[in-house]
Amino acid sequence: MTARELPRSRPDVITALEARLAQRLGARVTASQAVLEQHSHGEGLPAVGVPDLVVFPETNDEVAFILALCNDLRVPVTPFGAGSSLEGQLAALAGGVSLDTSRFDEILEVSQESLDCRVQAGVTREALNAHIRDTGLFFPVDPGANASIGGMVSTRASGTNAVRYGTMRENVLGLTVVTPDGRVVRTGSRARKSSAGLDLTHLYVGSEGTLGVITEIQLKLYGVPETIVAAVCPFTSLEGAVAAVVTALQSNLKMARIELLDEVQMRAAINYSKLDYQETPTLFLEFHGCPNGVSEDVEMMQAITADHGGGAFQFATRPEDRSRLWKARHNSYQAVMALSPGKNNMGTDACVPISELPACLLETKADILASGLTAPIVGHVGDGNFHLGILFDPNDAEETERAEALAFRTARRAIAKGGTCSGEHGIGLHKIVHMETEHGEGLALMKDVKKALDPNGIMNPGKLYPSD
Amino acid sequence: MTARELPRSRPDVITALEARLAQRLGARVTASQAVLEQHSHGEGLPAVGVPDLVVFPETNDEVAFILALCNDLRVPVTPFGAGSSLEGQLAALAGGVSLDTSRFDEILEVSQESLDCRVQAGVTREALNAHIRDTGLFFPVDPGANASIGGMVSTRASGTNAVRYGTMRENVLGLTVVTPDGRVVRTGSRARKSSAGLDLTHLYVGSEGTLGVITEIQLKLYGVPETIVAAVCPFTSLEGAVAAVVTALQSNLKMARIELLDEVQMRAAINYSKLDYQETPTLFLEFHGCPNGVSEDVEMMQAITADHGGGAFQFATRPEDRSRLWKARHNSYQAVMALSPGKNNMGTDACVPISELPACLLETKADILASGLTAPIVGHVGDGNFHLGILFDPNDAEETERAEALAFRTARRAIAKGGTCSGEHGIGLHKIVHMETEHGEGLALMKDVKKALDPNGIMNPGKLYPSD
Repeated sequence: MTARELPRSRPDVITALEARLAQRLGARVTASQAVLEQHSHGEGLPAVGVPDLVVFPETNDEVAFILALCNDLRVPVTPFGAGSSLEGQLAALAGGVSLDTSRFDEILEVSQESLDCRVQAGVTREALNAHIRDTGLFFPVDPGANASIGGMVSTRASGTNAVRYGTMRENVLGLTVVTPDGRVVRTGSRARKSSAGLDLTHLYVGSEGTLGVITEIQLKLYGVPETIVAAVCPFTSLEGAVAAVVTALQSNLKMARIELLDEVQMRAAINYSKLDYQETPTLFLEFHGCPNGVSEDVEMMQAITADHGGGAFQFATRPEDRSRLWKARHNSYQAVMALSPGKNNMGTDACVPISELPACLLETKADILASGLTAPIVGHVGDGNFHLGILFDPNDAEETERAEALAFRTARRAIAKGGTCSGEHGIGLHKIVHMETEHGEGLALMKDVKKALDPNGIMNPGKLYPSD
Repeated sequence: MTARELPRSRPDVITALEARLAQRLGARVTASQAVLEQHSHGEGLPAVGVPDLVVFPETNDEVAFILALCNDLRVPVTPFGAGSSLEGQLAALAGGVSLDTSRFDEILEVSQESLDCRVQAGVTREALNAHIRDTGLFFPVDPGANASIGGMVSTRASGTNAVRYGTMRENVLGLTVVTPDGRVVRTGSRARKSSAGLDLTHLYVGSEGTLGVITEIQLKLYGVPETIVAAVCPFTSLEGAVAAVVTALQSNLKMARIELLDEVQMRAAINYSKLDYQETPTLFLEFHGCPNGVSEDVEMMQAITADHGGGAFQFATRPEDRSRLWKARHNSYQAVMALSPGKNNMGTDACVPISELPACLLETKADILASGLTAPIVGHVGDGNFHLGILFDPNDAEETERAEALAFRTARRAIAKGGTCSGEHGIGLHKIVHMETEHGEGLALMKDVKKALDPNGIMNPGKLYPSD
């Protein structure tokens, strides 16, 4: 997990670049230490790889100008959205330019008829949902953090709603991308489906800023369901909770959210968010649909959970109660941190086929126990995705190593079970060690594509692709 | 639409290649004239681009051997599935080798727990669904033809169920691909979602055999719904039928199939399939779900259609009645051909955002009328996708030109409305003339990727990418 800093550009090159950029961008290029430091890391991560400059472009042409200039000078560029990424994607390992998209904050178009919208990359998901609140539509992908849409595209983010509405992969119709040599390219279309040529859109979704800069996104939207019911169901065992999920998925039961919190995570959440629940493995559920359909689904799920040692549902139907419930779920990171003040939280992001989820979770639970570490489990189990929050003291080398070893084994266990080391956070630099194992020969193809689209390697160097 | 034949390999090179291939494949390499002719075209298309050899490999290693050999000798390779593609993808424009995947006919794994399966590329969708019939699962993507799964991946196929279950894009979890230089690469995983690196899977989905040969596919499966109800609803006008569809989609109404047949297509279908319906614009619908949910959906759709001039629903609930209904829908191509014996049928594949669908359909209808041609309309209108079947006499140059002009305008109209020239059939060689208009600078990126992954250009030359 340690960041490997890369050779930086010569100071005179940076000075010349800064002067050229300032001519066009004025005060929107800066080398202020505070801004540089803020642009060197994602959420809760140490500042490794401080950039030399931060730029705040406002138009596609400005981004094209910046990239073409950096490409000519071979100065690296690291795109920066809302700063909420978790895998080290934002560290400017070779210095250079951090390209901040926060001024790309316009919602360009919303179509109630076509259930889609076009937004600039810096728009956050909360800003988008606030903007369309009166249209009866919403954008469902919800990673918890108030991430930028561009960042969510770049990491192929998902979150609590993905089991029903899909991830960013399923919800992006098209993009505007600026290539490293400064071309502004529109990918995809507004059509819901297309078989017209290579799928450039999905090549950029999840590319973590290594192929170019995403500036605009065409997104699917959905009608707000007539009825939304959230429910919390405690279990006597982790096995029972997971078995209930697997059964529900196999029964065609449609839920919008299926979240698992183990007893350690529940303790953290109860303490942090003052919840009136039990310290036992628990499912947080949400049902979307028409009144009758939701009633039918809830009843079916109650029968399934009861079969697996689940207790009575505690319902939340009023919007404010649902908000409180999901806020507690979203605050699981903060809740875990509050468990042991002074410790750091190392995240894992394993995702496995549903059939492998019970064994994978139980083996991981046993591994945590054997490690002697505290590591609550929280998961989007409807997708087979779960996270550990491994607590460790960064000043204790032995404990840090133990935490890293546990995280490593968790990722490799998922890969061995036909899954992935990263369900939704991306690779960045923390998961790079697993790329070869997970992709084998595919990694060579990824590098071929990278080389074709960024021949000088200026885009976010040191991330995603392990060096040869 | 005319095929441009490309320079072929020297006869002595082909002779040497045939000898090398025969050493390993024996009788599974052939230059028999009948087999060559059969491998020169897709469904209903003329034999342009007859290959020099046809090979029938049975293992990934054999495919790797064939490709590496052809790559060394710079002999082109055109992958061939079930032969049902519609856009000229299968024509061996530069001769060379047609690689037939029909012996890749094994279903490698089916998981009822994870709702997925792994199949070889030559398995047809009907064979897959027959194989899993007793598991309570089904594979929903249904382009009508009994296409091979590999071919469906290659054209990013969809069909009548896509409005609910998505296209091949949404249903492929991973692939085994053999690269032109003979590496066997596994992309994706069995996890339902992943953010671990570039999305190679979706780069190959829709690449029409131009980047490599797909040999295995990991697919999502779905539980057979408890209740399935099909219904046919006649309308007094095309406008009314489309308006009803748009309203239904905006109302969150979930249907599995929403198919439109205009009055000309209905006449053809009624005559060909002996149906007891009216010769008027008609929606073919299908509802999937639990009994209560389906009843609720049907009632809601009845109210919506009645508001837009729709008549009473004629229901089909028994499996044999539903099969008859959808068989009639699937036979629309044959039904159209029967309208005017001796004529050919030129297909279009426009797909537009739902908001643009009413205007696009009405403008197209007026254009057909003005053209003096017969061209029934049938469409997956829930996705904004519709086809014309333009009838023309291939021996009448003027009529052929008029048909081509109508097809051209239909594609360009879709692109101008934010849509695509190809919703589900792919580009092949017939739609290649629209690539620049639809993708602009994106086309250059596609060519960069093609060059990176097939540097010698041996894979299916002359398709997908217009030459510079």
